[in-house]
Amino acid sequence: MRIAVPLYPGFTALDAVGPYTVLAFAPGCEVTFVAGDTGPVADDQGSLSITATATYDDLPDPDVIVVPGGPGTVPAMGDARLVGWIRAAHATTRFTTSVCSGAFLLAAAGLLEGLPATTHWGFRDRLADLGVVPVAERVVTRGKVVTAAGVSAGLDMALVLLALLRDEETARAVQLAIEYDPAPPFTSGSASTASPELRERALSLIAGV
Amino acid sequence: MRIAVPLYPGFTALDAVGPYTVLAFAPGCEVTFVAGDTGPVADDQGSLSITATATYDDLPDPDVIVVPGGPGTVPAMGDARLVGWIRAAHATTRFTTSVCSGAFLLAAAGLLEGLPATTHWGFRDRLADLGVVPVAERVVTRGKVVTAAGVSAGLDMALVLLALLRDEETARAVQLAIEYDPAPPFTSGSASTASPELRERALSLIAGV
Repeated sequence: MRIAVPLYPGFTALDAVGPYTVLAFAPGCEVTFVAGDTGPVADDQGSLSITATATYDDLPDPDVIVVPGGPGTVPAMGDARLVGWIRAAHATTRFTTSVCSGAFLLAAAGLLEGLPATTHWGFRDRLADLGVVPVAERVVTRGKVVTAAGVSAGLDMALVLLALLRDEETARAVQLAIEYDPAPPFTSGSASTASPELRERALSLIAGV
Repeated sequence: MRIAVPLYPGFTALDAVGPYTVLAFAPGCEVTFVAGDTGPVADDQGSLSITATATYDDLPDPDVIVVPGGPGTVPAMGDARLVGWIRAAHATTRFTTSVCSGAFLLAAAGLLEGLPATTHWGFRDRLADLGVVPVAERVVTRGKVVTAAGVSAGLDMALVLLALLRDEETARAVQLAIEYDPAPPFTSGSASTASPELRERALSLIAGV
């Protein structure tokens, strides 16, 4: 099973590494970080770089793609090589997936027209501008397209995806292997229950990146 | 606030990138990946490399250290530069922390003698061989030493840590910014409720890495 995660400048690290870690733990899943050129790609903070080990041309037909989000998504929507690769790869994938604002890259590739999809709560409504039906859920599966909400939602998405790719027992075993029994110290992870002040503060953190 | 995350061959990516993403979102937190030499460091799968941008000598006195775990921990316990750096840095840190088997590196540096600490459920009892008191909790705080359970527990630990470093409102805002409102599709993340068969299967996945 060949899984490709495209990297572009300004991606958010956890968007890529959450699903990577889940999927790479499953036997027989080979995850490759791809980009326009091989070499290190810097994240949204500029302080983490992950090495792309293959170019888009090297891996034109992966079984699964996982497109991360991040502040770099907006310029990346104008990257014809990236968007063209997503569009072409989608024709033969088993699953085409995104995390956070990665959904906007799927939309830019024309894959979400009229479909329900999700993304980070902070800019979910803007999906409608691209002909997408925004859905306030953590993971949205529509046929072979699976979209996840913001950043950390990629972990939940990857477990859903792994159960579809393999079987539920494999996904459960990976969940236990990575001890994913979450216990956040606060209950502030959902915009639906956050105060306007906290939402504002979270958005300003994102804008500050 | 200078936060250092040491990388060594065979670290588990999410152990490092979960806390990194949480902490790097907080204004004024500068997170640096350090190693014996600068350059890419390969993870436990060999398919992800993160670039170390500073050597141990470049950053001898960070305010916080976050030591990831992974299958590479056992050889890393014999890496005198890494273990010596942890020991020396600990003398002046505000917090010294670990994720998963990173606790064994803190123990190798002599920092956990007689202290309660946690690590991945699969090898928690072995902490006792190093004079540590194993605790079956997700995050264990004892003075300025904070240890987390396996892999994904680094996210919860980092939010606890951020609240201590800054304040609870900042931690809550970061939690919302990364939409950490976890919804794993299965309830199989805890060894305390897993069947013996699932535990065995999860351990075989880890051994297979």
